Amino acid sequence: MLVVQKYGGTSVADADRIRHVAGRVIKRIKAGDQVVVVVSAMGNTTDELIDLALSVSPDPDPRELDMLLSTGEQMSVALVAMALRALGQEAVGLTANQAGIYTRAQYGSGRIARVEADRVRAELAAGRVPIIAGFQGTTDDQEIVTLGRGASDTTAVALAIALGAERCENCKDVEGVYTADPRIVPTARRLKDITYEEMLELASQGSQVMHNRAVELASVYNLPVLVTSSMVDAPGTLIHGESELEERNRVRGIAHDSDVAKITVRRVPDRPGIAANIFEPLANAGISVDTIVQNASEGHLTDLSFTLSRGDLRKAESLMPGICESVGSPEYTADANLGKVSIVGVGIQTAHGYAARMFRTLFDAGINIELISTSEIRLTCIIAADRVNDAVRALHDAFELERAE
Amino acid sequence: MLVVQKYGGTSVADADRIRHVAGRVIKRIKAGDQVVVVVSAMGNTTDELIDLALSVSPDPDPRELDMLLSTGEQMSVALVAMALRALGQEAVGLTANQAGIYTRAQYGSGRIARVEADRVRAELAAGRVPIIAGFQGTTDDQEIVTLGRGASDTTAVALAIALGAERCENCKDVEGVYTADPRIVPTARRLKDITYEEMLELASQGSQVMHNRAVELASVYNLPVLVTSSMVDAPGTLIHGESELEERNRVRGIAHDSDVAKITVRRVPDRPGIAANIFEPLANAGISVDTIVQNASEGHLTDLSFTLSRGDLRKAESLMPGICESVGSPEYTADANLGKVSIVGVGIQTAHGYAARMFRTLFDAGINIELISTSEIRLTCIIAADRVNDAVRALHDAFELERAE
Repeated sequence: MLVVQKYGGTSVADADRIRHVAGRVIKRIKAGDQVVVVVSAMGNTTDELIDLALSVSPDPDPRELDMLLSTGEQMSVALVAMALRALGQEAVGLTANQAGIYTRAQYGSGRIARVEADRVRAELAAGRVPIIAGFQGTTDDQEIVTLGRGASDTTAVALAIALGAERCENCKDVEGVYTADPRIVPTARRLKDITYEEMLELASQGSQVMHNRAVELASVYNLPVLVTSSMVDAPGTLIHGESELEERNRVRGIAHDSDVAKITVRRVPDRPGIAANIFEPLANAGISVDTIVQNASEGHLTDLSFTLSRGDLRKAESLMPGICESVGSPEYTADANLGKVSIVGVGIQTAHGYAARMFRTLFDAGINIELISTSEIRLTCIIAADRVNDAVRALHDAFELERAE
Repeated sequence: MLVVQKYGGTSVADADRIRHVAGRVIKRIKAGDQVVVVVSAMGNTTDELIDLALSVSPDPDPRELDMLLSTGEQMSVALVAMALRALGQEAVGLTANQAGIYTRAQYGSGRIARVEADRVRAELAAGRVPIIAGFQGTTDDQEIVTLGRGASDTTAVALAIALGAERCENCKDVEGVYTADPRIVPTARRLKDITYEEMLELASQGSQVMHNRAVELASVYNLPVLVTSSMVDAPGTLIHGESELEERNRVRGIAHDSDVAKITVRRVPDRPGIAANIFEPLANAGISVDTIVQNASEGHLTDLSFTLSRGDLRKAESLMPGICESVGSPEYTADANLGKVSIVGVGIQTAHGYAARMFRTLFDAGINIELISTSEIRLTCIIAADRVNDAVRALHDAFELERAE
């Protein structure tokens, strides 16, 4: 079968690991598969390049920053291709420009517009393994644009779809998707499969297994994605569309995130246009808002709370006096030390008892709930940051996630 | 005027120096000039990338090595452009692909085939300083090809010609071209100008001021090149086509090189085709031969000597038994510890007395001459490596080069 394998920065962090990746790819080819490889920058290269940029300019130009950052993946593809050739396997490293991964000139946050995979197909047909730079795209004018942090996952999924690959394999330093973070819950169990929707909720709620845009894209085209280890032979977790009947109405995993800040705009007049007045200035400042909750309040006044990451809080607070004035709110409050914990599973929203059991479990553990938000397949509580790990462990126990499915 | 400035690796080695370069460019623009900048990779980046490649593969694939090495210059252009923007000057970093520097797919040793400078002209017209990656070219198929060590000089000259620039400025960590290496001869003097031919002989004879291909290219198009300091304001040395009458028939400088090995093929039958039989196998093995001298010898037999760099000697020696057999030579001899010293100046070959004075000077210093070779404007003696510095000093004195012109 034709498969697209993606290797992240940890998997290509040094020469030994690069040779290990090359060995894995060759083993796979010898077993009869066709392999296309997508790689990230080595180890902490991207962060080091950002530091280098900041040492030259306090506010690096986004186009030039993309020009700089894209060198990280270009280095990786060259090295992985060299390692494959050193083992006797023909291979060819390709930049996004060479691989035909097109985007618009949204520097730092490009989206893949289309993949023109002729070159990649030709290399495959010639018996060469195409090694493709993740995280980057090219415009029609040959400008280099990066696709945002973690976007190498998206590159791999987009290529797999363009090539009609049987599946995409996300090869990582973990062995799959777990019921909770194994560093926090020692009894956490690897899931053998999971639906796109569940994966999305786990990822957006802080489980850093796979980039959300990649899962969304795979979901739209119903492309199966295997999350597996780049280090050891492991069965991994298959992300796909089907949810078997007996797996519905069950909590599949616990997600958490300890980096949450909250702002509450107090006593806002409850009239149309208020939300736009609050969130447009934040969006224009590049601040990403996560959960939004409007609390019932006295009379025609309401409290509106939203969460954001802690790093954006200072910038958001600088805008809040103006925002409060524009919506007629007398004041806002901010809390920087929050986290969130979520239970995720298809059907849990409509099934009875899950919410109650979650709230009871947190109450029993003495954890106060600041905010609640829900989706079709998720229930999230915002709590104090320093209680997040306790909450994850308590919920993992309460929903008996350590038991084999 | 329109000028192309080239900054080498030392001049952009760290954030401070990059900001310094940005400041120099802006000063120049404020003085009314239009500036196009060509940069090399930062400091030792290219060597570090080669080490990285060797850690992955003992014999890195040339295409992939070019893919890897070209990231060095890409990083530099992004950083210099950021630094200019941080100082309020619009600028844009361009890869060879973006700047239209075309080459054929001779990986590791591409030659510039043509420059399509439309994008560079458009950026200039829009008031942005184009910062262009040296050392690299693109093929028509978007393949990345490096142009050989030191080729950023050639990039700058080719761009200056394509843009019709008034001159190219090679900004370095030295203040110009000297009568001899100032580290060896403290009284060495900066030349205010020099002809292309003299510069070529100085460079090929080991004076590492400017890349030979760049000087050749400038010579063909009669483009003036100023070699000057990137650190301090200095008048530099202008390389150009005119040689004033009173500067003819004078020794302009002493070049030297301590990395010379010699092979002598003994008692070769003196018949047509011998030279081809000796040098074709060496060329096919990628060994670059420098001076070739055929010594008169007994009867129809002759001794043929050639020099090469020390690093190539072992590879050459492995081919010599076969070569000796093919040309009917009974044996060869090899000497690894040689160097060379040259006097350079337009007209010295035809003028009387220079050769005699050179040989006398070396004899007086007790230095034995192994081989002699000459060109129109150069006289070179191959001598023991450990006597090269003595020879340079003695010749600098003998030809009174410390005296102002």
